[in-house]
Amino acid sequence: MAEQLPEFWGGRRVLVTGGLGFIGSNLAIDLVAQHAQVTIVDLPRLGFGGHYKNIAAIEGQVEIHEVDVRDDLHMEHLIADNEVIFCLAGQVSHSRSMAEPLLDLDLNCRSPLAMLEMCRRANRSARIVFAGTRQVYGRPDYLPVDEQHPLRPVDVNGITKLATEQFLRLYHELYGLHTVSLRLTNTYGPRMDLRDPAKGFIGVFLNRAFRGQVITLFGDGEQRRDYNHVDDVVQALKLAARCDSVAGGAYNLAHPESHSLTEFVDFLDRLVGVRREHIPFPQDRKAIDVGDYQGDSRLFHSLTGWEPEIGLEEGLRQTVEYYRRKPQPVG
Amino acid sequence: MAEQLPEFWGGRRVLVTGGLGFIGSNLAIDLVAQHAQVTIVDLPRLGFGGHYKNIAAIEGQVEIHEVDVRDDLHMEHLIADNEVIFCLAGQVSHSRSMAEPLLDLDLNCRSPLAMLEMCRRANRSARIVFAGTRQVYGRPDYLPVDEQHPLRPVDVNGITKLATEQFLRLYHELYGLHTVSLRLTNTYGPRMDLRDPAKGFIGVFLNRAFRGQVITLFGDGEQRRDYNHVDDVVQALKLAARCDSVAGGAYNLAHPESHSLTEFVDFLDRLVGVRREHIPFPQDRKAIDVGDYQGDSRLFHSLTGWEPEIGLEEGLRQTVEYYRRKPQPVG
Repeated sequence: MAEQLPEFWGGRRVLVTGGLGFIGSNLAIDLVAQHAQVTIVDLPRLGFGGHYKNIAAIEGQVEIHEVDVRDDLHMEHLIADNEVIFCLAGQVSHSRSMAEPLLDLDLNCRSPLAMLEMCRRANRSARIVFAGTRQVYGRPDYLPVDEQHPLRPVDVNGITKLATEQFLRLYHELYGLHTVSLRLTNTYGPRMDLRDPAKGFIGVFLNRAFRGQVITLFGDGEQRRDYNHVDDVVQALKLAARCDSVAGGAYNLAHPESHSLTEFVDFLDRLVGVRREHIPFPQDRKAIDVGDYQGDSRLFHSLTGWEPEIGLEEGLRQTVEYYRRKPQPVG
Repeated sequence: MAEQLPEFWGGRRVLVTGGLGFIGSNLAIDLVAQHAQVTIVDLPRLGFGGHYKNIAAIEGQVEIHEVDVRDDLHMEHLIADNEVIFCLAGQVSHSRSMAEPLLDLDLNCRSPLAMLEMCRRANRSARIVFAGTRQVYGRPDYLPVDEQHPLRPVDVNGITKLATEQFLRLYHELYGLHTVSLRLTNTYGPRMDLRDPAKGFIGVFLNRAFRGQVITLFGDGEQRRDYNHVDDVVQALKLAARCDSVAGGAYNLAHPESHSLTEFVDFLDRLVGVRREHIPFPQDRKAIDVGDYQGDSRLFHSLTGWEPEIGLEEGLRQTVEYYRRKPQPVG
């Protein structure tokens, strides 16, 4: 992987929206270690997954604004004042995006577009990195899915994030802004939200494992996924901000190894011991399920040198250790 | 072309948003002739191109609501009360979409999504037809452009309309709504807005021809386009509402003949007499210009039987006659 020269980040003014959340807090902690001047925007009270405890390790070393990213007036000076902007705030729950599509559009599309407009007017040299999603592809025609794959999102979240990627590309092409979207696949690791079932199956499974509850698998459990440890994702986000060659693009952050849900539960079983059951695929989940998924991130690798360093088994071991060290693993 | 059986429209409750505008007023007049119960939503005072004079021919025969399509509370009962909903309101100016991207997102994406939500909750049998745009394709890889062509919009308008098409498809797939998008190409004819230069070159050229002003062509004027007369577009919109087989899809409304801008001006010259000049392509227009364009609408033809019946030369002749019959052709 390309070296992360600390000189780039030392003293640099960096804004992390969603910085109290799972990926945002891990990123903020890493950036503080590299002596960046980190400002966080988040609304922990709203239940989107941000918690002050996530940044306990860097308390007092970051500036925190409890601001709604939809609040243009408040966002304006924050956007103008920073050199790098990581847009990690927003709606990440696919099922919730179906229940509240207008909120999803506001958070995942209107707010990033407003930020791009602010940069166009007041901060053309800003480097903007957006957390995209593999959901923009919908049901894969082939595996692994590369960036040439047709874009047919099958939920509101995928549609709004895809529109934002196109705004990012447009603002790069027309106004020269450094904009990048990274299409995340299933991401896990320390500080992930284990309590909100809408955040995806990894948190649900870990939660149930820690509580000794039965883990429910839909169908035969043979659906395959690829998984990235949050530390690898943090490195990718930083490279996306630094590397000029990726500007204007949208890139997969995949992992070369895929594992079925059953294998995932097997790993967890060895670490924690789990009970499991299989039930038929619920109809409403089937409608937005994309089947097997495996991404291809060779394009981003070729431009930045990034590749994930942590495999699922090792990553899960670290994650379980992290939660076991807490007074209460869950909660 | 498939017959337009009047039985389908007789007594049917139809909502036309943007019904005082160019395409909307032509559609409303046609629907009234077929004994539909037409309700129009528009905001003529806002300068988006709606005028009461456009529907002078059906005065008293339609219900008109001066309501902002962004006003969910007002829209709710209108959406619930109608069987067919034509979404023709919105931002159609590409250059204006670049100047006010957030307004464009609100009008072209958030409002249609809100309407879809209203239908999902209160009107699942509604038939919803949306005015899309060929701009969703961006610069063509090949001509004629069919629906398999990659989607790479090069302006905000194209991005917001593409996102809305994906919402339409999703709401068909998940909730069974009858939703269709027609990707319009250059549309012209009676009641088009000749006064707003942001509405595209056809109106500008007609305006200048009637006023005896010089018509300015960018570059060599050899950029090719296809053109549809509004009467053909109206027939397509009605078919899109009626034909079950098109539900969930987005279709090109192309014309099989393309003409260069120079040819367009030649036709106009024969009808009105024009003066012309050539100037280099302005930089800001070049950035969002897509080069030659020719669409392929065989897919929509195969499902509905639609094909345009009016060629450009004949259509322009009718259009010029329409404006000449007015006390003042322009204004």
